[in-house]
Amino acid sequence: MKIIKSPEKLTPIIKKTKCQRQTIGFVPTMGALHQGHLSLIKQARKDNDFVAVSIFVNPAQFGPGEDLKTYPRPLRNDLRLCSKAKVDLVFLPDKQAMYPRGFSTFVNVEGLSNLLCGANRPGHFRAVATIVAKLINLVAPDTLYLGQKDAQQAIIISRMIKDLNFPVKVKVMPILRQKDGLALSSRNIHLNKTQKLEAVVLFKALGLAESLISLGLRDAGRIISRMKGLILKSKQAKIDYISIVDLETLCALKKINQSCLVALAVKFGKTRLIDNRVMIIRCLKK
Amino acid sequence: MKIIKSPEKLTPIIKKTKCQRQTIGFVPTMGALHQGHLSLIKQARKDNDFVAVSIFVNPAQFGPGEDLKTYPRPLRNDLRLCSKAKVDLVFLPDKQAMYPRGFSTFVNVEGLSNLLCGANRPGHFRAVATIVAKLINLVAPDTLYLGQKDAQQAIIISRMIKDLNFPVKVKVMPILRQKDGLALSSRNIHLNKTQKLEAVVLFKALGLAESLISLGLRDAGRIISRMKGLILKSKQAKIDYISIVDLETLCALKKINQSCLVALAVKFGKTRLIDNRVMIIRCLKK
Repeated sequence: MKIIKSPEKLTPIIKKTKCQRQTIGFVPTMGALHQGHLSLIKQARKDNDFVAVSIFVNPAQFGPGEDLKTYPRPLRNDLRLCSKAKVDLVFLPDKQAMYPRGFSTFVNVEGLSNLLCGANRPGHFRAVATIVAKLINLVAPDTLYLGQKDAQQAIIISRMIKDLNFPVKVKVMPILRQKDGLALSSRNIHLNKTQKLEAVVLFKALGLAESLISLGLRDAGRIISRMKGLILKSKQAKIDYISIVDLETLCALKKINQSCLVALAVKFGKTRLIDNRVMIIRCLKK
Repeated sequence: MKIIKSPEKLTPIIKKTKCQRQTIGFVPTMGALHQGHLSLIKQARKDNDFVAVSIFVNPAQFGPGEDLKTYPRPLRNDLRLCSKAKVDLVFLPDKQAMYPRGFSTFVNVEGLSNLLCGANRPGHFRAVATIVAKLINLVAPDTLYLGQKDAQQAIIISRMIKDLNFPVKVKVMPILRQKDGLALSSRNIHLNKTQKLEAVVLFKALGLAESLISLGLRDAGRIISRMKGLILKSKQAKIDYISIVDLETLCALKKINQSCLVALAVKFGKTRLIDNRVMIIRCLKK
């Protein structure tokens, strides 16, 4: 497994791989790899001749007061996991390599970036779109693997790829969960024991929404209100948002008469967790 | 010569060309081709196995009240010129193909885009960067050919390519001029006889700046003031801006103690003309 730190060293390797007509699967990450990331890598390994993983904690996507400093960086373990998963190349740039002096270009997916998580994290998705555009250009993958856990991110990146005609396919892989339902996240490490138990409420709230919708409830406001009630039973939970939105535009729905995304962000102490579920509605019960 | 109107038809041709390991030279244009464009195509032809030209009058880069409607579109002649110049492929998309419903991603080179021409054309360079990013992804060129005539555009696109790691080289080709010095431009067609004669003053003003600098004058304000005096002798000239700026940041210089760009935009009737000259200062006279 090659470990490459600079764009200058990456480019000739990618060129060579392309010349040999090998397909490239790419998993961009911020490290602190868990089974969720590994499921993306596994799929990439299955689909492609060459698998690249990037590990870069992108400072631009953390706002002031967010957890850039405390974001977990267990690099040695990450590399061990990549090696075990038969990754061909880990791209491990530093800040200077990605944002050299004079850097001033940003990619913004307008509209989509200011909703849901973007509402309280201004500039976050602009930074995500920009770094992924850079990584796509550097790694030149045939297929990009993203996790459904970061649903808005996956929707925004897919939109960017379509809008800017990047020649890359996107595969979005399902959320992986603990047995109790808590979605795997690099940030779970910050939860104490009580918080970890209480955090299962995100999963339960999504289950509640699904039940209510399958029972025929169509009023998004009422569903959200029921979810809120459930979550606030946890003493430490502070709701950032609960939204039911269109799958493409991310616009909030009042009546659920189409497939939709139920998404939420909840803080436990300083740790902000997100979770979501896509509700496929094929046939309307009126 | 292939004439291709849709991204869907372009992609397999580009893929095949790449597979055959042919190098691709690309000249993005808005049509109304003149000898300036042809000098870019000629260079691309000299350097590459495969030459692609795009013709797309990008509506997003025209502001309200600008000349989108009247921008010349002599398509048949453009195609004839391309064919004569041994272009392999002309990409001729329509607005719908480039901006389908739901389009919402923009590339912005911050800072650089609000100066010079950008100051009076808000959103112009954002639209230019966005369309060129799309075209680079579609055409996948090894080298992109730009004209020095649009100096700010060339600087912004070069910055974007560097910042976003697009795997493409840029060649900026010199301004071509009429015998009297008027820079070739698709917009010259809108000038009447008097305006065409008077417009030579842009070239003369740049010559004046060069003389003053070579005589040792270093005060940008005084040079600009002398240029202004010269241009305003033309009865129809209305100055949009005259600036002396840093070659990379485009920031205005007060003292010229480094190589710089002297750039100006002047209106004759409804027609806005631009011109510029790079002044290389190797050794300071104090």
